[in-house]
Amino acid sequence: MPARSTRDPIEIGLAEHACLALVADGASHGWAIGGLLAPDGELGRIWSLSRPLTYRAIDQLTEKGMITRTGTTAGRGRDRRTIAITAAGRRVNRRWLDEPVEHLRDVRTELLLKLELRDRAGLPRAPLLDAQAEALAPIVDALTQVREPDLVALWRRENARAVQRFLSAARAAEATSDATDAATDADSGSVNRAPRATGA
Amino acid sequence: MPARSTRDPIEIGLAEHACLALVADGASHGWAIGGLLAPDGELGRIWSLSRPLTYRAIDQLTEKGMITRTGTTAGRGRDRRTIAITAAGRRVNRRWLDEPVEHLRDVRTELLLKLELRDRAGLPRAPLLDAQAEALAPIVDALTQVREPDLVALWRRENARAVQRFLSAARAAEATSDATDAATDADSGSVNRAPRATGA
Repeated sequence: MPARSTRDPIEIGLAEHACLALVADGASHGWAIGGLLAPDGELGRIWSLSRPLTYRAIDQLTEKGMITRTGTTAGRGRDRRTIAITAAGRRVNRRWLDEPVEHLRDVRTELLLKLELRDRAGLPRAPLLDAQAEALAPIVDALTQVREPDLVALWRRENARAVQRFLSAARAAEATSDATDAATDADSGSVNRAPRATGA
Repeated sequence: MPARSTRDPIEIGLAEHACLALVADGASHGWAIGGLLAPDGELGRIWSLSRPLTYRAIDQLTEKGMITRTGTTAGRGRDRRTIAITAAGRRVNRRWLDEPVEHLRDVRTELLLKLELRDRAGLPRAPLLDAQAEALAPIVDALTQVREPDLVALWRRENARAVQRFLSAARAAEATSDATDAATDADSGSVNRAPRATGA
């Protein structure tokens, strides 16, 4: 992905980005991050990561200078190494949270994860949703204008339409939510926002 | 999956089913099957499988008595072991080609593969499309009736609608195609059918 490389010389994957965002949000050790990303964790409903892969992502982030070890804290059974985000990590995280995904197939996981992590960081969803709709518009247009499609083209068309409708609905919900936010606190439980702890 | 197990005591995966259907369709050695399932092969546009995994699937099918070794034929460089489907394999294959998929996430790959393989076998698409629409109806209904959804529910709703629209469009195309087939040969190049060799 040369386009991304020019903007971000350090390539990191989705696992690293998710962990980095959670450290930026205040998670201070791998055990806590692993819990948030477990299938029944607060983020796991959107995208889950096993504990071994969580620890591996944290090691990668440390090697790349995006997080730093800060000491240890008492945990159940054994001490846990504590971590914190670095200035470099904060920049990479913020850029990622602002950046739309490239492919339709990334909407279900990466975009939803970014939106949820933006909520946690107190960032509005609307700018990313707008940028995302704009970024995917050419792909969606091309796929939905197919005539006399075969099965694969037919599926791609309906999938593109699903992404388009999802983005429209999310943006509409955001507009409603923004209007409500003018009167109430943004985190007071608007039905249009994903609850932070859902379990299922 | 106990429901499937009672109907089919021999559990085989998607790789095995795809290879089995291709042997049923006349492919007589692993090399040919690997070519059809390569990313640029006739089936690979829908679902691709590497050559090592293709050979592994053929070994599994042989162990399970669904295909049998019939000899060798001259290939480029070395001889190729030839294979043929057994009566048991034919039964398992036909049942699989008639059986709708269980989950929305299987529509893009497994259902499209079955539909394409039905074409190759000269079986009409309509019975499977009808059974599929009926099988997924409760899931689609539940997901599309969600009110005040969070992001994940919103995505699932639009994804369910995409499946619903895909099945409707495919069934409508089939109805048109059936009308056309009354006058012309089914394989004469109806625009509603996936071409057999598409490459991209």
